Amino acid sequence: MKIYDWHIAPNPRRLHIFLAEKGLEIELVEVGQDDMTLAPSFKERYPHMMVPMLELDDGTCIGEAMAICRYLEELHPEPPLMGIDAKDRAMVAMWEKRANEEGMLPASELFRNTHPRFADRGLPGSSEPIPQIPELRDRGRARLDRFFAKFNRQLEDNAFVAGPRFTVADTTALCAVDFAGWSDVRIPDGHGHLRRWYDAVSARPSAKA
Amino acid sequence: MKIYDWHIAPNPRRLHIFLAEKGLEIELVEVGQDDMTLAPSFKERYPHMMVPMLELDDGTCIGEAMAICRYLEELHPEPPLMGIDAKDRAMVAMWEKRANEEGMLPASELFRNTHPRFADRGLPGSSEPIPQIPELRDRGRARLDRFFAKFNRQLEDNAFVAGPRFTVADTTALCAVDFAGWSDVRIPDGHGHLRRWYDAVSARPSAKA
Repeated sequence: MKIYDWHIAPNPRRLHIFLAEKGLEIELVEVGQDDMTLAPSFKERYPHMMVPMLELDDGTCIGEAMAICRYLEELHPEPPLMGIDAKDRAMVAMWEKRANEEGMLPASELFRNTHPRFADRGLPGSSEPIPQIPELRDRGRARLDRFFAKFNRQLEDNAFVAGPRFTVADTTALCAVDFAGWSDVRIPDGHGHLRRWYDAVSARPSAKA
Repeated sequence: MKIYDWHIAPNPRRLHIFLAEKGLEIELVEVGQDDMTLAPSFKERYPHMMVPMLELDDGTCIGEAMAICRYLEELHPEPPLMGIDAKDRAMVAMWEKRANEEGMLPASELFRNTHPRFADRGLPGSSEPIPQIPELRDRGRARLDRFFAKFNRQLEDNAFVAGPRFTVADTTALCAVDFAGWSDVRIPDGHGHLRRWYDAVSARPSAKA
């Protein structure tokens, strides 16, 4: 199997961290280009046009970082990164979804609608021009403020986002915080629980993967 | 266990269909109100302020429709609605995520940013005022056009969204198509595969649940 990758991009990073925590090595095929677009050969072959994409030896293509993680978690259950029993797996799924929709998506919305390189690429996964919407700057910032506050509250009583263990909910939340930083949005002062967690997960070797 | 519900809302509907397909009956507690807001008592108790929410007998609250489905799928595996083996489960997760992010979220964005009842509620899950962004009307429509086209292509070779079996990917896609209809956006002419699938899944008894 191999993974089509864009090494600097936030969504593939979720998978890099996952692989490092599992101790897995899978061939990475870089399809990102210096101008922040995907290689034409990749876009032609995979019309969904998003990375990461796991291609199995039988040709099956699994897209979406969490779908890939779910597949690899079944093949390589240790250490568990998606929960240890039915209830825990539900909590991880819930917090991972919130980290994605309330952190990653707002960070992406803010970046894509303000960065000059994305002037006609306001949404991912399309080759048609999608104009930026300047009002999404303020909304993106407001959404990220709520994300920081909600996760700070959750981390007041929990070592990690979904409870006592490091899981994919942490992976997504960490990538969201750092993606927000691309637009100069940082964890606000006063969010001590979020800051403590951020420093701890950033110090894991997997964060540099 | 019991489910906090808003019977007419699109996200709880994903769970209603799931329960009907499984033949499960769980107590539903209605917390939606006639003015399209959630009951204050619910918002106070559950600051995440989103439905559906499954409360277990030990007090654990599981939010997010797919996290709830994942929990119930483990307790009641038959019929499988989230895949039958590792690869199939990954495909279901991938297509469910696409149906959500490329169908449900754009339908929600379009509705919330255009409907007069949501004048200061441009985003779900908050009691702070979030102004509507009129430009999201066109973007929402463009996103839904892409959703329809992508799923029409997928359904050309597949009976259901994630392959030969009805799964949660169909549930989410069906709720997305119908949610788009709230803003008078319908499956465009010429998308015969999507139309064939839509008629089939709409005719299942679970679609009326």
